[in-house]
Amino acid sequence: MRNTIGWQVEGSSSTLLRTPLERRDLRPDDLAVRVDYCGVCHTDVHAVSARNGEGGRPLVPGHEFTGVVTEVGPAVTRFTVGDPVAVGNIVDSCDECAMCRAGQENFCHAFPTLTYDGIDRHDGSTTLGGYSREYVVRDRFAYPLPAGLDPAAAAPLLCAGITVWEPMHALGVGPGTRVAVAGLGGLGHLAVKIAVALGADTSVVSRSPDKANDARRLGAHGLIVSTDPEQMADARDRFDVVIDTISAPHGLGPYLRLVAVDGTLSHLGHLGTVTVETTDLLVGRKKLSSAGSGGRLATAAMLDFCAEHGITADIEVLPSTHVNEALDRLRRNEVRYRFVLDMSDLE
Amino acid sequence: MRNTIGWQVEGSSSTLLRTPLERRDLRPDDLAVRVDYCGVCHTDVHAVSARNGEGGRPLVPGHEFTGVVTEVGPAVTRFTVGDPVAVGNIVDSCDECAMCRAGQENFCHAFPTLTYDGIDRHDGSTTLGGYSREYVVRDRFAYPLPAGLDPAAAAPLLCAGITVWEPMHALGVGPGTRVAVAGLGGLGHLAVKIAVALGADTSVVSRSPDKANDARRLGAHGLIVSTDPEQMADARDRFDVVIDTISAPHGLGPYLRLVAVDGTLSHLGHLGTVTVETTDLLVGRKKLSSAGSGGRLATAAMLDFCAEHGITADIEVLPSTHVNEALDRLRRNEVRYRFVLDMSDLE
Repeated sequence: MRNTIGWQVEGSSSTLLRTPLERRDLRPDDLAVRVDYCGVCHTDVHAVSARNGEGGRPLVPGHEFTGVVTEVGPAVTRFTVGDPVAVGNIVDSCDECAMCRAGQENFCHAFPTLTYDGIDRHDGSTTLGGYSREYVVRDRFAYPLPAGLDPAAAAPLLCAGITVWEPMHALGVGPGTRVAVAGLGGLGHLAVKIAVALGADTSVVSRSPDKANDARRLGAHGLIVSTDPEQMADARDRFDVVIDTISAPHGLGPYLRLVAVDGTLSHLGHLGTVTVETTDLLVGRKKLSSAGSGGRLATAAMLDFCAEHGITADIEVLPSTHVNEALDRLRRNEVRYRFVLDMSDLE
Repeated sequence: MRNTIGWQVEGSSSTLLRTPLERRDLRPDDLAVRVDYCGVCHTDVHAVSARNGEGGRPLVPGHEFTGVVTEVGPAVTRFTVGDPVAVGNIVDSCDECAMCRAGQENFCHAFPTLTYDGIDRHDGSTTLGGYSREYVVRDRFAYPLPAGLDPAAAAPLLCAGITVWEPMHALGVGPGTRVAVAGLGGLGHLAVKIAVALGADTSVVSRSPDKANDARRLGAHGLIVSTDPEQMADARDRFDVVIDTISAPHGLGPYLRLVAVDGTLSHLGHLGTVTVETTDLLVGRKKLSSAGSGGRLATAAMLDFCAEHGITADIEVLPSTHVNEALDRLRRNEVRYRFVLDMSDLE
């Protein structure tokens, strides 16, 4: 086994502690990655909270990180030592089902192996995430980090970026598409940047009128204040695609009413049950979808697109020793727009 | 006022009684229609049941009927006395909102006037439906009944037909599209006929293996028995479009799992709240939509299409005096596939 250090929740605590970790010895198709930067995702907050009081196996969060290859297994051909790489929230899949064969490993019928709190398909161990100085990953699930992208600001592309890219790409967002992004947080601000770069007519829907300047700076053409009934009524049936990135529980009705006839509300980053009034879908032949992460092909395409358009996240970098502060502030939405942990203090 | 006779529920009863009714005198853009045939829709069953115990205003169901024009107002140009016509579940709209201007009167922002149990926009009266010998309707909401369509078997096209046509048309169903129709009843059997005529590779999903012969006779290429887990698993991710016509309450998960990547489940004929597991949408980027009725343009297009392809409903015609029996048998799904009331006994 390989020794490294990471930030771990143990037992029923919700505080991450600096902990020595073991990584597996490299399999033939594995890379060892020195993790330099790891984004802090809402999923991490939920995972830590869910563990609170439950006890059970240890948890090391982190599923959007960048770093440098430090060692490669003998079957690895796409990477060599010293290559900058990026890893997202999936690190393995069955390779054999129709989804894997189509490059949609995120939909693997045998369920993809998650980057943390997943079950390794070969040794049955629990995967430990990127809040650590080293990660060992199968080469297929590491991506070359394109030159020109800042490694810290690029880290959130691997979860937040691909999550907003997937539905926009699938729904054909481009010049002429009217896109509304509801919620201007970690996912939302990247959705705005990507929608604008795709050429879409892009608006932001936010509770806060004080986000107007930020929305404009990100390239949005308009802001709709969701707490203003008149503005919401004026925007009825206006958008071909509404990307709902709001992390707090909320009714979908007001956002479905913004969708144009035959348009789609894509509800992101929320797992669990949602309830929908069928009339909110029926009136306007509207569609509801949901998205989170992406397959290898889409992830590589998203990284290329972001490199071409100079898109990264707006981040606040914190030394990894501030991880608990980052999670607390994220719980209170006190970040514009993504925390990234600098792992260089884990030596 | 004009005098006619119809089948009405009064007070808290759920039995329809033969009752003298009044129709309004013709406005300039009104037609009087002698109703010859009226289909019996699940909505009628729900409306009668909802009225049971509630009391309140009288109810005359019926919103899919055919007949003959007997009188026209002075501003009517599209019809003359003797023309065969068809009327569906909408009889007026505001004419002014963006939806009405786009020919999507079914999505009228001021809410369309329903054929029965609606509120007339001009005199505030409660609309009384097609279970009667005469109906007075604004000319815009009557459709010429194409020659060659049997007037009895065509009646259900005006609700069941347009309800299944709308989503298939909007989703681009055609040659090469893989369509599954869940539920083989009034809506489902028309969905199969229309999907097949559109050139789609069409399957039926039914609880009853004994529907296999019917499915084949209707033109379907396959039957999936929904109570057989193996058949459902084999059909996973297989259909671009799943048309869910099942009238009983049911979970959407098993039907969403039949939808292919980027495909759509269209959930028909059910109003109210539905719950969805977001992972059932997320895994495969699937979409949920809902449909019911259609605007004037779509209704006219559907009638033309059905005339061209010789599509009508498979019906059992009953004299209107058997209306209570028809509703009872429909509650027990004892019809293949639509009851149509013959109104000629209401003289």
